[in-house]
Amino acid sequence: MSHIRKAVHALHAYVPGEQPRDRNVVKLNTNENPYPPSPRVIEAMQRVDADALRRYPDPHCGDLLHAIAVLHGVPEGSVFIGNGSDEVLALCTRAFVEHGGRVGYFDTSYSLYPVLTEIQESRRHPVELGTDFDWQMPAGYEAALFFLTNPNAPTGTRFPEEAVSSFCASFLGVVVIDEAYVDFAERDCLALAAQLKNVLVVRTLSKSYSLAGIRLGYAIGHPVLIEALYKIKDSYNVNVLTQRIALAALRDRAYMLRNVAQVKRTRERVGAQLAALGHRVWPSETNFLWVEPCGRGAKEVFEGLRRHGIVIRYFPGSKTGRCLRITVGTDAEMDRFLMGWQAGMDGKATA
Amino acid sequence: MSHIRKAVHALHAYVPGEQPRDRNVVKLNTNENPYPPSPRVIEAMQRVDADALRRYPDPHCGDLLHAIAVLHGVPEGSVFIGNGSDEVLALCTRAFVEHGGRVGYFDTSYSLYPVLTEIQESRRHPVELGTDFDWQMPAGYEAALFFLTNPNAPTGTRFPEEAVSSFCASFLGVVVIDEAYVDFAERDCLALAAQLKNVLVVRTLSKSYSLAGIRLGYAIGHPVLIEALYKIKDSYNVNVLTQRIALAALRDRAYMLRNVAQVKRTRERVGAQLAALGHRVWPSETNFLWVEPCGRGAKEVFEGLRRHGIVIRYFPGSKTGRCLRITVGTDAEMDRFLMGWQAGMDGKATA
Repeated sequence: MSHIRKAVHALHAYVPGEQPRDRNVVKLNTNENPYPPSPRVIEAMQRVDADALRRYPDPHCGDLLHAIAVLHGVPEGSVFIGNGSDEVLALCTRAFVEHGGRVGYFDTSYSLYPVLTEIQESRRHPVELGTDFDWQMPAGYEAALFFLTNPNAPTGTRFPEEAVSSFCASFLGVVVIDEAYVDFAERDCLALAAQLKNVLVVRTLSKSYSLAGIRLGYAIGHPVLIEALYKIKDSYNVNVLTQRIALAALRDRAYMLRNVAQVKRTRERVGAQLAALGHRVWPSETNFLWVEPCGRGAKEVFEGLRRHGIVIRYFPGSKTGRCLRITVGTDAEMDRFLMGWQAGMDGKATA
Repeated sequence: MSHIRKAVHALHAYVPGEQPRDRNVVKLNTNENPYPPSPRVIEAMQRVDADALRRYPDPHCGDLLHAIAVLHGVPEGSVFIGNGSDEVLALCTRAFVEHGGRVGYFDTSYSLYPVLTEIQESRRHPVELGTDFDWQMPAGYEAALFFLTNPNAPTGTRFPEEAVSSFCASFLGVVVIDEAYVDFAERDCLALAAQLKNVLVVRTLSKSYSLAGIRLGYAIGHPVLIEALYKIKDSYNVNVLTQRIALAALRDRAYMLRNVAQVKRTRERVGAQLAALGHRVWPSETNFLWVEPCGRGAKEVFEGLRRHGIVIRYFPGSKTGRCLRITVGTDAEMDRFLMGWQAGMDGKATA
């Protein structure tokens, strides 16, 4: 007799991007911010004393909750804080979907969503994006929960505001707008979370705040949705260090915005250079580029770069396998990337 | 139409022990260790640099995994690491129990188990302990998963080894032996996790290692069970700081053992003093005492102590409501506690 739940036994787990130990590798594969977090966060970390480590953390993340509520101009009861936005997304499948209920998301989008759906024994109900990753909702589409990634990954594009808001207004289930990359975008959807009872916006400190290491994500939306997440979370899901560091980071928002501005400048420069070389570059509102190489296959380019010590992301598959996702690093990293890319294109020896 | 899953809507969430902000309060309510963690952990924390915060943490907790495997003499494939043992326990209900399956635990024990059971839409199948919190398994008892807390909470007692091992050997489901307090006990059950395919032992750094603030728990057992937990965990469930700090703590195990020895000395002294005053004190193998006051009701004593700025834990209910759970603090804290206790017993003014 197996002890393992059937759905878990059958599950293909989510595979996170590789974390190479070799610090000489140019790591452009998991959309980390190339710039360090605010010096304020290091100070906040070093101020944590033995007594804070010894005690349970505040289960309600009180100070941080207050700061997030003030930042976004929403009541504290509209904010849920999690151990990274991954935890928030997982809790959404468990809070809003009955077993056997439908969970929607874009194909292609963040590949965690179908895994979360399987774990919850819900039914995957993806919406196919067009060949160029454009969005059109099929008539009569219904689901209990829809993960709307905006800007989308791995494509980097932002869906039109009117399309998002009219979808949210007519959809009967809960819409979770995953705004992991929104600080690199021109617009956000926070207003929808404030206006509509069925919309949550999910944010993370992993990308724009350069804090992937601490695991901090949050959701904003109607208190009824937020309360459901609180009911099923682990009591002490966010440790004391993450609470203190996140608070320091949010208080130095100007620092984050300067980093983001620099990433965007680099993104535009590299995107333009790749486009000038004839490659197709999607308009990015994130900290990565989605590129269809011209002249060589995506997999071949990916492998060539790897031999040069440059790691980007290749997603096999009929739709995604023709493109590559490239995290925007520092200007120096991107110059090294462009050299490696060009060497691969020129067919130079790459051993 | 409600957006909330029915089971979640109906749920009574777990209520964590109070975390008073007033640092003058003698806090003996959540079984934190009164002594600070090893100075090595503060050093490890301060060595974490901006680059580590910026990057995703190691999703496999490689260094920590290795250290835990070595410490317990088990293969790395027999170890699962979680965001506190609460996360490990929650994952167990999701990995090993079908919806509608049965989850067992003692009544009385850790009150999180029934909450986790409800979230997973499984069926609660508690085993009643006797009036004096002794254990006898009902004939024909079956469940998919059994949480066996040993030493038990809130009673502090350890169940006899033979009873535990014969139960594990004959039980058809998975047994999760929750050893949160085991470093304060005379014996552990790790050998069962190594011998039997259906047994996991769960540990935490919250109590003996004085690290409740960082959230680190782990499970040890058969690789088939461990793999199931890995498949459904959030990829980056343990942040980089917790990984580094936990590693430093495990490397200074001697420091932890000295603190534990001191807590045990204080526990024996205070237990003997309360017993000498006529109160019933259960033999504790944990860092807390379970006491049935003589002469006054438990609730009255609890409230009296509270007015003295001393917070202990009172669990209302027919079985638990006659007793009190008192975390073992420093000797100075326990002296203050004993004075408050005695004042309540003598009926002195307590305003």
